[in-house]
This record gives sequence, structure tokens and C-alpha cells, in this order.
Amino acid sequence: MSTSVRIGFLLFPDMLQLDFTGPYAVLAAGPDVEIRTIWKDTQPVRSSDGLSFFPNSLLTDCPALDVLCVPGGGGVQALLNDVEVLAFLAAQAKTCRYLCSICTGALILGAAGLLEGYKATTHWQSLDILPLFGAEPQSRRVVMDGNRISAAGVSAGIDMALTLAGLLWGRATAQGIQLGMEYAPEPPYAAGSPASAPPDVVEAALSRTETRQAARRKAATEAAERLRAASRGN
Amino acid sequence: MSTSVRIGFLLFPDMLQLDFTGPYAVLAAGPDVEIRTIWKDTQPVRSSDGLSFFPNSLLTDCPALDVLCVPGGGGVQALLNDVEVLAFLAAQAKTCRYLCSICTGALILGAAGLLEGYKATTHWQSLDILPLFGAEPQSRRVVMDGNRISAAGVSAGIDMALTLAGLLWGRATAQGIQLGMEYAPEPPYAAGSPASAPPDVVEAALSRTETRQAARRKAATEAAERLRAASRGN
Repeated sequence: MSTSVRIGFLLFPDMLQLDFTGPYAVLAAGPDVEIRTIWKDTQPVRSSDGLSFFPNSLLTDCPALDVLCVPGGGGVQALLNDVEVLAFLAAQAKTCRYLCSICTGALILGAAGLLEGYKATTHWQSLDILPLFGAEPQSRRVVMDGNRISAAGVSAGIDMALTLAGLLWGRATAQGIQLGMEYAPEPPYAAGSPASAPPDVVEAALSRTETRQAARRKAATEAAERLRAASRGN
Repeated sequence: MSTSVRIGFLLFPDMLQLDFTGPYAVLAAGPDVEIRTIWKDTQPVRSSDGLSFFPNSLLTDCPALDVLCVPGGGGVQALLNDVEVLAFLAAQAKTCRYLCSICTGALILGAAGLLEGYKATTHWQSLDILPLFGAEPQSRRVVMDGNRISAAGVSAGIDMALTLAGLLWGRATAQGIQLGMEYAPEPPYAAGSPASAPPDVVEAALSRTETRQAARRKAATEAAERLRAASRGN
């Protein structure tokens, strides 16, 4: 298959850059790809760890996408009740072939009403928020349900993007991309999931992020109420 | 340990962005980190897949670094004989605690005369170039020899950076970073190394990159000759 594929990544302030740059590296290596980086304006968007990225498309002028990818991060809270962004996602979702999230980007899709009745995953600390949006949380690395593909936290976006590359371009092309980026991972520790990490490391992570998670749950609850109100209005 | 650590990443045109963004995501999550992104000017530097990054420091004004990381990519060829860049690296190498490379960034360290007598790794397609610089190629994911730490291709930079995080901040902090980015990888294919990938996928990769590898070997040969001439001059 050599048809051009138009792939869009939503950018937003305080996103996690690896949620975006990991899948981008995989998908940009595909044949005949057009990548859109999308935000409200074209000023550089600053991620939570300080790297900035240039959007090349606006929410208001982005053409219909074949694939839409939504990263996560600290900026998610602000987006859960941003009607302009949520309306953009809902409109694109009507026609795109694959609707993807990385990490807590799944919460944004949820707030846009796009995961109702779908199985999905997200960062392990936010799995319990998904049911607010009618999604069935799955503690798995990559979850595909219909045309929704969600990845667990941050680095899972690379696995998701390789899965997607296989769907878009076939197995051999996806394997060629994997070989090109020498993705035969060997983490030096077995600490990448709450099940494998030492209990004190998990405890420290939970305690360090308590305030953020509370803010996230609050914003998600508000978004879920708005969704229910809108659904009653229909 | 809570002493501030100053970490520098060399940026350059046509670098592979994940060589940079993967380790950056890991190291920026450390405690009390100052990160320098370094190039000849402060204009955005365009990576090979189209993402651009802002340098925040110049080769000429960057203070002494505790850690120096050099990514790789198509832009490596031009750097192998760029005396300004190579002199910067050699000067920083005299005082930095760890000198790191990701992917073909190892060739740049080699061209700066910094891998002579060291074991090192690089992207699998360029391992055979390392001996030109007196380095002993190792077909491993992460290689540490003295204060030189090298990673294999692209995604190996994440493994390297977690190893480095353990050295800088201790095991529990590195594990906390790994848990935060949910790095418990599950590649959908076993194709991340020439040994595991299907032979036709390896063959296609070799054939697709033949011209680039020839240019790389040519530039490396020239750089090695320059190094030998300089060494005879001493």
C-alpha cells in the first residue's frame, strides 16, 4: 500500500513530550506520510519537561485526518473541559480510520465522549478515571477496540505506534521501522509497572503525584457531568 | 543525593529526534537537573523526521557539563569532520563525569578522538565503523567503559539513560522514573535487532541505506586520517 496517510498529533501546553515524540518517530518513518501537529495557534508549545514543539496546523484549519493521536501529561486536566478541543476531536473522530491515545491522552478522548462503551487503557495511575467516561479500563500495554487504539503510560506509545504501523502498512514495513530504531528493549530495572516495581517505589510515586491525581479526578468528574448533561439534552 | 546535575545534549541538523527526546525524557525527570541543548546558534534545529528543537546554549558559551550526551542520525556524516564541534566535545570530555552517545552519536565521539581504546556500541549498521577510531565495537544494547556510556540504535538511548539515572541518583530514583514513564516494553514484533528480525526485513534495511552507509564510512575514514595526522603531530 502506498496511499498517503495523514496523521495528526494534538499538541498542548504541559504535555509529556515522549508521549508525542515516541509515536511520531515510529510513524514518521512510514512510507508517504503527512504529519500534522495541531494546536490553537502556531506558537511553540512547551511540554512539561521543557522541550517546545511547533504546531503546523490549527484546530480550525486541520483537514480530515486518517489517524489522530492524542498524548497525555499534566496539561490533560485543562483539556478535559476545553470545549473547543473536544469538539475538534469529536469532529475528526467521525471520519478518521484510527483514533489513538497515549498515556492520559485517553482521558481527553473520554471527555470528548469518544470512549463510551470502548475498552481502553491509560497510564496506570489514571485507569480508575476511565469509567467516568463509560470506558472499560484494561490494565494492558496496548488496547485496540474497534478503531480506538490506546496505549498505557508514556513509553507504551512506541509499542502502540508499531502496532498501528502494522495496520497501516503491513507487518514487514512495521518490522523494518522497528529494526531501524533498534527497538529490542532491555530496561536496566524491572520497575516499569506497579506490579513489577518495588513496593516502596510505587508508594513514593503515588505519594508524589497525589495532588495532581486529585486535580485530574476533579476535572474528569466535571467533564463526565457535562457529557451526561449533553446526552440528556439529545 | 540532591546536588544539581548539569546535563548537555548536542543538537544538530538532521539528527534522529528520538535519540535525543528519549534520554531527555528520562533525565529531565531526575531531581534538580539543569539541561543544556547545545548547538552553533539558537535557531531551531530540524531533526531528520521534521521536528525542530530550540538550542538553549551555544558551543561557545556552554559551561562545563557533568554529563554530555551525543545523539546520532543522518546529520552525523557532516559532524565527523566539523572541527568546531569536535573541539567542543574534546574540551568538555576533559571534565565531565559521564560522556554518553546514542546510536551513531558514538561515531562523533570517535571522530573527536574520545573512544580510542574504549569498548563502545552504536547502531547495528555502523558497528564496523567504530574500529576506525580505535574503539572496540560491542554488539550490546548499552556499553559502559570507564566514564564512556554508549547506547545501540535510537531506542537504546532510553535504556542508557535509565542506567545513567541509576548512576547519578541511585537505584530507587531511576526505578521511580521508569515507573513514571511505564517503561515495561512489549514490542509487537521481535524485529528490533538484525539477529531477531526476519532476514528479508534485514536485507531490505541494508539495501535501503546502502548510499548513506557508504557516505558515513567515507566521512569516518577521512576523520580517522585527520586524527592519526594530529596524533603524529604531537
